[in-house]
Amino acid sequence: MEKIISYLENNFDNSVKEFFEYLRIPSISTLDESKDDIRLCASYLQEKFKSIGFKHTEIIETEGHPIVYAESLEAPGKPTVLIYGHYDVQPVDPVELWDSPPFEPEIRNGKIYARGANDNKGQNFAHIKSLEAWNKIEGKFPLNIKLLIEGEEEIGSPNLEKFLHTNREKLACDAVLISDTSMYADGVPTINYGLRGLAYMEIEVTGPNRDLHSGSFGGAVANPVNELARMISKLQDERGRIQIPGFYDDVLPVTPAEKENMTSLDFSDEEYKKELDVKELFGEAGFTTLERLWARPTLDCNGIFGGFTGKGAKTVLPSKATAKISMRLVPNQDPKKIAQLFTDYVNKIAPDRVKVKVTDLHGGSPVVIPIESKAIGIASAALEKAFGKKVVYTREGGSIPIVVEFVRTLNAPAILMGFGLETDDIHSPNEHFRVNNLKMGMFSSAYFFDEFARNF
Amino acid sequence: MEKIISYLENNFDNSVKEFFEYLRIPSISTLDESKDDIRLCASYLQEKFKSIGFKHTEIIETEGHPIVYAESLEAPGKPTVLIYGHYDVQPVDPVELWDSPPFEPEIRNGKIYARGANDNKGQNFAHIKSLEAWNKIEGKFPLNIKLLIEGEEEIGSPNLEKFLHTNREKLACDAVLISDTSMYADGVPTINYGLRGLAYMEIEVTGPNRDLHSGSFGGAVANPVNELARMISKLQDERGRIQIPGFYDDVLPVTPAEKENMTSLDFSDEEYKKELDVKELFGEAGFTTLERLWARPTLDCNGIFGGFTGKGAKTVLPSKATAKISMRLVPNQDPKKIAQLFTDYVNKIAPDRVKVKVTDLHGGSPVVIPIESKAIGIASAALEKAFGKKVVYTREGGSIPIVVEFVRTLNAPAILMGFGLETDDIHSPNEHFRVNNLKMGMFSSAYFFDEFARNF
Repeated sequence: MEKIISYLENNFDNSVKEFFEYLRIPSISTLDESKDDIRLCASYLQEKFKSIGFKHTEIIETEGHPIVYAESLEAPGKPTVLIYGHYDVQPVDPVELWDSPPFEPEIRNGKIYARGANDNKGQNFAHIKSLEAWNKIEGKFPLNIKLLIEGEEEIGSPNLEKFLHTNREKLACDAVLISDTSMYADGVPTINYGLRGLAYMEIEVTGPNRDLHSGSFGGAVANPVNELARMISKLQDERGRIQIPGFYDDVLPVTPAEKENMTSLDFSDEEYKKELDVKELFGEAGFTTLERLWARPTLDCNGIFGGFTGKGAKTVLPSKATAKISMRLVPNQDPKKIAQLFTDYVNKIAPDRVKVKVTDLHGGSPVVIPIESKAIGIASAALEKAFGKKVVYTREGGSIPIVVEFVRTLNAPAILMGFGLETDDIHSPNEHFRVNNLKMGMFSSAYFFDEFARNF
Repeated sequence: MEKIISYLENNFDNSVKEFFEYLRIPSISTLDESKDDIRLCASYLQEKFKSIGFKHTEIIETEGHPIVYAESLEAPGKPTVLIYGHYDVQPVDPVELWDSPPFEPEIRNGKIYARGANDNKGQNFAHIKSLEAWNKIEGKFPLNIKLLIEGEEEIGSPNLEKFLHTNREKLACDAVLISDTSMYADGVPTINYGLRGLAYMEIEVTGPNRDLHSGSFGGAVANPVNELARMISKLQDERGRIQIPGFYDDVLPVTPAEKENMTSLDFSDEEYKKELDVKELFGEAGFTTLERLWARPTLDCNGIFGGFTGKGAKTVLPSKATAKISMRLVPNQDPKKIAQLFTDYVNKIAPDRVKVKVTDLHGGSPVVIPIESKAIGIASAALEKAFGKKVVYTREGGSIPIVVEFVRTLNAPAILMGFGLETDDIHSPNEHFRVNNLKMGMFSSAYFFDEFARNF
C-alpha cells in the first residue's frame, strides 16, 4: 500500500492536469446541443478505462445518453465492488456569474474551479486514479471491479433503472461504491449510511365551477383556498407531529449507536439558525435537529397556488386551489403505503362543500445501511487510514432514488463515501473541488480496495 | 305624466336609433388609442344635453378622461337630483367571441347587442330620454337636475373622488340617482339599497432566507406555506364564523323589515348550488344565503402562492408564501379599523419561527340606505308605476366605492335603480340590454322625477 500511496502522491500534479482534460469536455446532459460532447466524454472515459488496465470496456447505448462500463473479474475468490458515478454535468447558467469559464478549469486558493469539478467528475476521477495506481504498482487490481459511469444522472437517470433490472447478473457485486455526497466538514472523513425516501403528493381543491366575484358570491359558497389551508393545517399539529393515522407505524427508531454518533457530531442549532436567518427552528418535538433531518419523517408544502397571484388586489373567489406536499420517509416506511394513508386522510378531512383530488406524483424508498455492517466497517477503516482521523457517520435528509435502486436490485450494500463539501457550489456558478479532497479521494479509494479485498 | 309616457312610447323606435349612435362610439377608457373616441363621446353627450334642454353644459377636464356635466337649476323650491353615470366602456377582447361587432349595435331576440348597451350607456341613456320627454311636453324639468357622466368608471374612477371633494357645493343635491346595477330578475323592479365594503389585505410569511432543498432541510425549519395555511385556518372556524377579535363588534343586524324582504324573495339554494356545481353551500352559520351575501361580513382568500407552482414535482422548501385575503364589510364596520384588527390578530397568531408581514392593500366603506327612507320610498313608487309591479329591495355583496364617496361627500342618499340583468354579459363578449328594459328605464326615470319633485 505504501508504494501505491507514494505513486499517487508523486504523480498527483500530473493527475490534476489529466483531470483538467476530463473537465474540459462540456458534457451537459440536459442540452440537446451537447449531445456530441456527451459522446466525446463517454469515449474519453472508455479510453481511460482501457489505459488503467481494464480489458473489458463498453459504451452501452440507452434511449438517452450512453453508459460507460468496464469490468475486471480477474481476482477469483475475491469480492466484487461496483463503482457507480456519472460523467454528465449540470448546465452552467447563469454563466456570467462564473469567475472563470466553467469548462476551462483553474486552480485558485487550493480549489479546482470548473463545472463537474466535484459533481461528479472529480469524485469518480479519484477512483480512476486509484485503480490506475493499483495496476501500475501491482500489475492488477486486488479484487474484482465493475465500473459504471452513466451520462444521465443530472436529468434523473431515466434509463438506469431499466438497465439495472435487465442486467442484474452482469452487475452482481458485494458492494456498490458511490462517491457523490459531501463530507460532514472539511477534513472529516465521512460515510453516509442513510437516505430518506419520498412521497410527493398533490391536492387539488375545487369549489365553485368557475372563478367568482368575491363580492357578489363571498359568504355563500366555500372558498377552495380557505378549505385547502384548513386541510393543510390538519396534516401536522403545532408540535410538528404529522396527524395522518398510521403515518409513524413503520418508522424505525434511531438506534442507541446512531444516537450516540449524532450527539457526538459538532452541530450548532445557533449557527444553523443564523445561517438560515430564522429566530427559531421547528420540527417534530422531542428530537434533535440532526435526528429530525436524518432519521425522522417530515411533511412539507413544496408549493401552493390558487386565485390571483399578481401584484395588488383582485377580488376573485377562485374555483380551484392546489398544493404540492411531500413527505420525507425513513426506514421502514413504504412510499406507496404512505401515499395511500395520506390520500385516505385528506379525503376524510375534506368537507363535502368542495371537491378534492389527491394525486400521488412520485415516490422513492428510504434506505439505511446499518453502521454496524461489514461493508461500512471496511470503508471506515480505509477512510481512517487515508485521513488519519476517525470517521463520522451521517445520514442525508434528501433522497437519491438510484442508490435505493442499486441496493434493492443488486441486493448489495451501498457505500456512500463522498469527498465533496456542502460549500462546493455544485449545480451553481463557480462549482469547485478542493485539490486536497481530490487527493484524499484517491488515497481513500486505494485503501478501500485493499481493505475490501482482504476483509470482506 | 300620461303625455310624457306616451311621448316616450311613441318615439321609442327613434330613441333606439339615436341610442345606436351613442353605442357606435368606441369609448374604451383603458386604451390609449381610444383617447379621441372618448373625447368624441364626451362631445356627443354635451350636444345631447344641450338638445334636451340644458342651458348649462360643461366638459370638465381631469388628469384623465373628461367628465361631462350639465345642470338645470330652474325649479326654485324644488328638490335637486344628481344623476351619475359613465360613458366609458370596457374593452372588447376577445373580440372573436362576439356574434356581431361590439360597436355595430344590433337587435336580436329583443336584445340590443353592443359594448356598453347595458353598462352604462343604456342605463344613462334612459335618463337622457326621460328628461327630453319632460322638456318636450312640459317645456321644463319638474325639479333641479345635475347630470354627471364620467369617462373613467371602468378604470376605477381615478379622478372622480378628488372632483367630488373639490366640488361639494356645485354638486350639492338631495339625492344621487345611479342606474348601474341589475334587477333581481327580468321584469322585477328593483332598488339596491346596500353595498358591502372591503378590507383587502396581504400576508407574506418568510421562513428561511432562501429556498431550500426540502430533503436536506425538511424537518429542521418551519415551512412558510404550512405556517401560512395554519394561520389562514385560524381566521375562520368550521362554521364560517370569523375569529378576529372585535370583527363583528360594529356589524348592524339585519332589521326585521329587511329580513322579511329577503325571505319574500324568490331564492333557491338548490338552484344556486346547481349553478355553481357545489354539493353544499357554505358560510356563516345561522344566516340564509341572501343574508350572508348581502348583510353579513365575509373573509375570503383571493389568492395564495408560494414555492413551486409548475407541473409535476420540485422538492423545494420555499422561503416565502403569500396570501391575499379580503373581507367584505357591512355597516357600520370601518375598513381601516378592520384592517387593524386583522393585522393585530395575524401578528398574534404568527409563530416566532417565521416572519410575517401584513399589508393593507385597500379598502372601502359599506353603505346602506334604509329602505324606510323617504328617497327610497319615492323611487319605489316611481318604479311601481312604470312596471305595474311591487318593488323588490336588494343589497349587493360587492362594493362600488364611488357610491359611498357620493353618499359621504354630498351627504345625500344614493338611489341605485338599475335596469340591467345579471345575465346581460357586461364586461364580456356579447354584452346586451333588453329593449324592454331600456323602455322601462325611461318610464321609471320619468315617473321618478315627477314623484321626487312632488313628494321629497
